[in-house]
Amino acid sequence: MSPEQFRQHGHEVVDWIADYWARIGSFPVRSEVAPGEVRAALPPTAPEQGEPFAAVLADLDRVVLPGTTHWQHPGFFGYFPANTSGPSVLGDLVSAGLGVQGMSWVTSPAATELEQHVMDWLADLLGLPESFRSTGTGGGVVQDSSSGANLVALLAALHRASGGTTLRHGVEPDRATVYVSSQTHSSMEKAVRIAGLGTDSIRIIEVDEDLAMLPGALAARLERDVARGYTPVLVCATVGTTSTTAIDPLAELGPICRKHGVWLHVDAAYAGVSAVVPELRELQAGVEWADSYTTDAHKWLLTGFDATLFWVADRAALTGALGILPEYLRNAATEAGAVVDFRDWQIPLGRRFRSLKLWFVLRWYGAEGLREHIRSHVALAQELAGWAEADERFEITTPHPLSLVCLRPRWADGVDADVATMTLLERLNDGGEVFLTHTTVRGQVVLRIAVGAPATTRAHVERLWALLRESHDWLAADFAAAAAERDAARAAERAAEAPAPEAQPAEA
Amino acid sequence: MSPEQFRQHGHEVVDWIADYWARIGSFPVRSEVAPGEVRAALPPTAPEQGEPFAAVLADLDRVVLPGTTHWQHPGFFGYFPANTSGPSVLGDLVSAGLGVQGMSWVTSPAATELEQHVMDWLADLLGLPESFRSTGTGGGVVQDSSSGANLVALLAALHRASGGTTLRHGVEPDRATVYVSSQTHSSMEKAVRIAGLGTDSIRIIEVDEDLAMLPGALAARLERDVARGYTPVLVCATVGTTSTTAIDPLAELGPICRKHGVWLHVDAAYAGVSAVVPELRELQAGVEWADSYTTDAHKWLLTGFDATLFWVADRAALTGALGILPEYLRNAATEAGAVVDFRDWQIPLGRRFRSLKLWFVLRWYGAEGLREHIRSHVALAQELAGWAEADERFEITTPHPLSLVCLRPRWADGVDADVATMTLLERLNDGGEVFLTHTTVRGQVVLRIAVGAPATTRAHVERLWALLRESHDWLAADFAAAAAERDAARAAERAAEAPAPEAQPAEA
Repeated sequence: MSPEQFRQHGHEVVDWIADYWARIGSFPVRSEVAPGEVRAALPPTAPEQGEPFAAVLADLDRVVLPGTTHWQHPGFFGYFPANTSGPSVLGDLVSAGLGVQGMSWVTSPAATELEQHVMDWLADLLGLPESFRSTGTGGGVVQDSSSGANLVALLAALHRASGGTTLRHGVEPDRATVYVSSQTHSSMEKAVRIAGLGTDSIRIIEVDEDLAMLPGALAARLERDVARGYTPVLVCATVGTTSTTAIDPLAELGPICRKHGVWLHVDAAYAGVSAVVPELRELQAGVEWADSYTTDAHKWLLTGFDATLFWVADRAALTGALGILPEYLRNAATEAGAVVDFRDWQIPLGRRFRSLKLWFVLRWYGAEGLREHIRSHVALAQELAGWAEADERFEITTPHPLSLVCLRPRWADGVDADVATMTLLERLNDGGEVFLTHTTVRGQVVLRIAVGAPATTRAHVERLWALLRESHDWLAADFAAAAAERDAARAAERAAEAPAPEAQPAEA
Repeated sequence: MSPEQFRQHGHEVVDWIADYWARIGSFPVRSEVAPGEVRAALPPTAPEQGEPFAAVLADLDRVVLPGTTHWQHPGFFGYFPANTSGPSVLGDLVSAGLGVQGMSWVTSPAATELEQHVMDWLADLLGLPESFRSTGTGGGVVQDSSSGANLVALLAALHRASGGTTLRHGVEPDRATVYVSSQTHSSMEKAVRIAGLGTDSIRIIEVDEDLAMLPGALAARLERDVARGYTPVLVCATVGTTSTTAIDPLAELGPICRKHGVWLHVDAAYAGVSAVVPELRELQAGVEWADSYTTDAHKWLLTGFDATLFWVADRAALTGALGILPEYLRNAATEAGAVVDFRDWQIPLGRRFRSLKLWFVLRWYGAEGLREHIRSHVALAQELAGWAEADERFEITTPHPLSLVCLRPRWADGVDADVATMTLLERLNDGGEVFLTHTTVRGQVVLRIAVGAPATTRAHVERLWALLRESHDWLAADFAAAAAERDAARAAERAAEAPAPEAQPAEA
């Protein structure tokens, strides 16, 4: 494709996206296709000859959009949001157009230095400790996901705990232990498996009634494990768990970790970016105890996937675990020690110029724009929680400090509450106007409502609230009618079974 | 940014990229900035208020381009190419605009099904075995890099070799062994470290004079390790090594691996995509023995990073190693077993809609267009190799079956050949017209010339060849002059040191 063809078709694609964003509210949020339907619309083999671009573009509407669940839809309240924005898309577009590899400083210095710079800016904006700055002992780097960040944190912790012996000798699954709570994201368990430790090395620490890790329980478990000869490697504390945005108390966990020399990793994948708002920073008080920290700009900070912000207080542990330098990558800048090579801070070798989109977002919105974005969603979520608290049809069973609200619908006695709640969820999602997901809290199903799509306004939250109440009323009435029918049927049955005096056979 | 603002600024960015591509040949290939120069051009803190988009765009020229090494430059012959193309950039742009998460089928069915479909198309186009098709026991998935693919292959192999016990109990670094050659990519060693095995578990198998793994040596080492109680887990064979594009003989290695039940992973990161050309497929004869296979569309198949094509013959081993299903991700489609959830095929949980760019590339160029792309670069590389073979200033010491040619400049006796070659390399790269990198072959430095940037034509290869000869002549003359000076100086010194008869002091 020549530059001039690209100019033409590029304008067409930009227009297609602008139109898509303008009409996104008209789609059902959740795709309605059945398994296999998208593939059935595609030819069985790749074309032998090239096709006109118009044919490709037409298939976006014919094949792709019907199979799309619209994460940017204002009625998307599922999972956690997956924000994107105009400046993010355009920063990514520049990155794709440049097509550079940022694996080493020398392979495109701007890719490394802009990333270092933007990560320092973000550390400032989030009020993170000095040790995370590139000017200190640590530094920030963009990772592919908080799953990836949790894994590299564990690898760095294993490296430090072993004094580097893991490099040659591998891990000791029978000795190494990793500490999480029942609410920790599953990616930490996955990281433990990937790193060769096996899930038996995981210690699940008890949580309090708000689902936050209990410092006392952690301290006791660490003491016991150390006494038994285990080597505690890493504690994963979460700021804003995936299930309910519970907050593990960093200020209390930190000193316990420090006492035992165990690496404190903070997984703030969703909630961390909220710290751009000073009044929300208290949620992660004690973050200065962290050895590493991850939060996703691609969830709630107007930046498209992937843009995980990962910081480490001691970069030497990270590069000790992940650094490798074959001959074909040797170069003067690296040998002189004058530069950072981000390939040694991550799992893959290659890397895209991901800081461009962060830079575009930071400059277009400014710090104030990002604060306004976060504040508005938190306010909407708090409003929704207030409505639910005042309504006897719903209850709120967990704290909601940010923009996720978990609702437990109340049902009449005799109704299987979990089945009823899942039925309500499916009914709402089938309707197409909104999309939410669920979780379990203390064994009971609850609805998760994550406010956070950039296009979501108060009107959308009001509409969701109306749909929740309507659906609850409809289902409750349905259950009541069914119960009445059952009662009537049972009464009839009892009547039928009861010996009819006139039908009593005469005793022989 | 509103849809209409996006439309306007999107057109500006598309134009900027089209212009960049049109003028790319005018830049020095390798960035000329010194460490720290890019950061020094940036303000110390993020802006408080948003800035106009024009300011951001202007900084691309002011800050980013001077710090960019231009991988799409027609004079880029370094490392391996990092192809991109118009349709790839536009497919990625659509992906960014949709902003969907493809972690589970249900989170956007098209993201999963288009990926399955395109991977099946590509398996066809590359002539890969039936077992790699989604319709068989295996399947294909897009990974972030071949480093990532090498890691997940190892994790699947560990899962299979242990019968799944690694999940709970972790790895056994003292027993598990992994087989590579001295030419295997460093990412396999990195994968071994990440997976907790440690480098002591790596067996480096001898290579032949063409730097290909010796099947007999592999067989002998496997026998010996098994006899000593080790558990061979994985053999990594490479089709097209990074250093010189050596080809490990899959047809001979396959049966050896099968005999010992060891997982055969084929790392064809660079070379694999060449199999779109039927006459080049012989290079990977025996690929049907592979348990897994990786090749990068983002190196040499006109698709931007990241687009690693990874196939596995038994997907159960992969999802057994990587699958995990927390409550908040449960859904009806997954529970019914009717769909594939690609989060269980990779390290991260989240994933972009990367198949869009592959789909765009396949449709715009068609299979014939991709074949032509590969064929033209192979032909250029063979021509260059022919010129070098006919020239006494250079020698070619390794096979060059594809589009990488390794040249060893010949130098006069007395010249330190490695220093001279590195000097030649720096001189060429400093010139700005071309960029190449180096490696070592049998302990000697050689120049790597990777033909593969989409814009590279015969004229650029001719110019490179002219520069190589000129620089060699210039340096050789310089060395000769220096040698002559040294000789003259030595002669003068000898003359000075010789006892001058008239200066002999009289014996006392």
